[in-house]
Amino acid sequence: MRLATFRDDGREGVALVQGEGGFIDLTAAGLAADMIDLITNFADRRARIAELGAGGSHVRPAAGATILAPIPRPPRNIFCVGKNYREHAAEFGGSGFDSGAVGGSEIPEYPIFFSKPPSSVIGPEEAIRSDLDPYDSVDYEAELAVVIGRGGRVAEGDDPMGFVFGYTLLNDVTSRELQRRHKQWLLGKGIDTFAPMGPVIVTADEMSDLATPGIRTFVNGEKRQESRLRDLIFDIPTLVRTVGRSITLEPGDVIATGTPAGVGIGFKPPRYLHAGDIVRIEVDGIGSLENPIS
Amino acid sequence: MRLATFRDDGREGVALVQGEGGFIDLTAAGLAADMIDLITNFADRRARIAELGAGGSHVRPAAGATILAPIPRPPRNIFCVGKNYREHAAEFGGSGFDSGAVGGSEIPEYPIFFSKPPSSVIGPEEAIRSDLDPYDSVDYEAELAVVIGRGGRVAEGDDPMGFVFGYTLLNDVTSRELQRRHKQWLLGKGIDTFAPMGPVIVTADEMSDLATPGIRTFVNGEKRQESRLRDLIFDIPTLVRTVGRSITLEPGDVIATGTPAGVGIGFKPPRYLHAGDIVRIEVDGIGSLENPIS
Repeated sequence: MRLATFRDDGREGVALVQGEGGFIDLTAAGLAADMIDLITNFADRRARIAELGAGGSHVRPAAGATILAPIPRPPRNIFCVGKNYREHAAEFGGSGFDSGAVGGSEIPEYPIFFSKPPSSVIGPEEAIRSDLDPYDSVDYEAELAVVIGRGGRVAEGDDPMGFVFGYTLLNDVTSRELQRRHKQWLLGKGIDTFAPMGPVIVTADEMSDLATPGIRTFVNGEKRQESRLRDLIFDIPTLVRTVGRSITLEPGDVIATGTPAGVGIGFKPPRYLHAGDIVRIEVDGIGSLENPIS
Repeated sequence: MRLATFRDDGREGVALVQGEGGFIDLTAAGLAADMIDLITNFADRRARIAELGAGGSHVRPAAGATILAPIPRPPRNIFCVGKNYREHAAEFGGSGFDSGAVGGSEIPEYPIFFSKPPSSVIGPEEAIRSDLDPYDSVDYEAELAVVIGRGGRVAEGDDPMGFVFGYTLLNDVTSRELQRRHKQWLLGKGIDTFAPMGPVIVTADEMSDLATPGIRTFVNGEKRQESRLRDLIFDIPTLVRTVGRSITLEPGDVIATGTPAGVGIGFKPPRYLHAGDIVRIEVDGIGSLENPIS
């Protein structure tokens, strides 16, 4: 299933998205107060949603609604992973912007986790505010994001994939200068509007291949990043287990898995985002997420 | 005013704390659904609360209630500052556990911000779970925490102190080994139960002296940390401005300001916390916060 959060006439709802932009309003059907409610209660509601999808009732035209981030206000900060593609780890380690880089050790030994506040989340087509980076060093990072469905800590014998609800896209927009200055990455990564997310959550059952799908970024139509999900240094089960070992996972938690090579800071001189640019990230099987820079 | 969140017969409420443990139930009086609600609406309710305090009505015995963290579930991760006392910056930089340390540069040029998830928060007397650190490297960090009252971004001409609601204590409990391994500090700092907070929020008007108050930690009665708030490298206005410049502040946000020298990792060999230990932190004018290790 492909699930989106929308706003229509001032009302927010959750929709099952069916090909060509048509969607079924699950909130009107009483099946989702919001996305967190749907994720929390998905096991009980899944069959009924599938029925609705097959029947095609409650269909509304997408044209009348705005697609928001699938989880417009996560209940806590988004978990994010740094330097999780080999080539990107090398380009970032060599950029001079990595406070953690010590000569020759660009590939991390353990996954690097930081966070982005809920207030940084925006939806498709919303503007990334470059004026909030005082140093004009705004960079993109296309990422596959894992959405957690099952709460709890991940015990030794647990399959971490059993905690996964689905997948979406997240652009881990970054002020490189704030990231460098403050060493820990919260301020450089946590700026308002610096976490575009969406457009949909694809449930885990529809995305069994987590190796082949391509991940790409385009800036004003020019391809900047391209890789495949198999190039992750730490794979999704490892990431979910690493967080969930000591931090109780919660339904609706988001874990952004890191970005491949090709970020703006990797160019000499760096190619940052500026007002008027359009950045689009995509992962095969999920879709694309486009945002203007203002 | 001194404000606490309590649980009494399964009900949570907010109280005005008046000397010797007596308190006035502001929730029963219709003045605070919870602490975030009170902080958000404090300007409108302050006079009425002061009246209640003077009148002594709605008084309940503290003995019948459990004091919780003043904000038991912050709406987003707690903002925390690292290496913000000179002597601690030196002891941590020299410990071998600081991924950001590069020879001789222990005093940070800019404040270092990371976060702790809402799920790490516990109240007074609740147990810090040492079993959730797989490496048996649990350390204490006594900190003054700033509670934000006014939302918004901090503009150039704004007085950052106008955004401050009050102050509380936070023990920034840390797994040193996870902190070291994962380089960014979210996993080492974000463990369930690793953010004891409380016991009260003291409103800013009652704490105008942010220089003289002492800050201390005791482990099983032995003093380990002792400093004064004036020893902060980056002061409170600077911290509030640094976050609020690019991240919209929200009522109830918490900014923990860093810890002085004397943490367990500063000893050779390190003196970590273990099951059965009792850790107490205190800041003059606010109170003390004691937690057992389980």
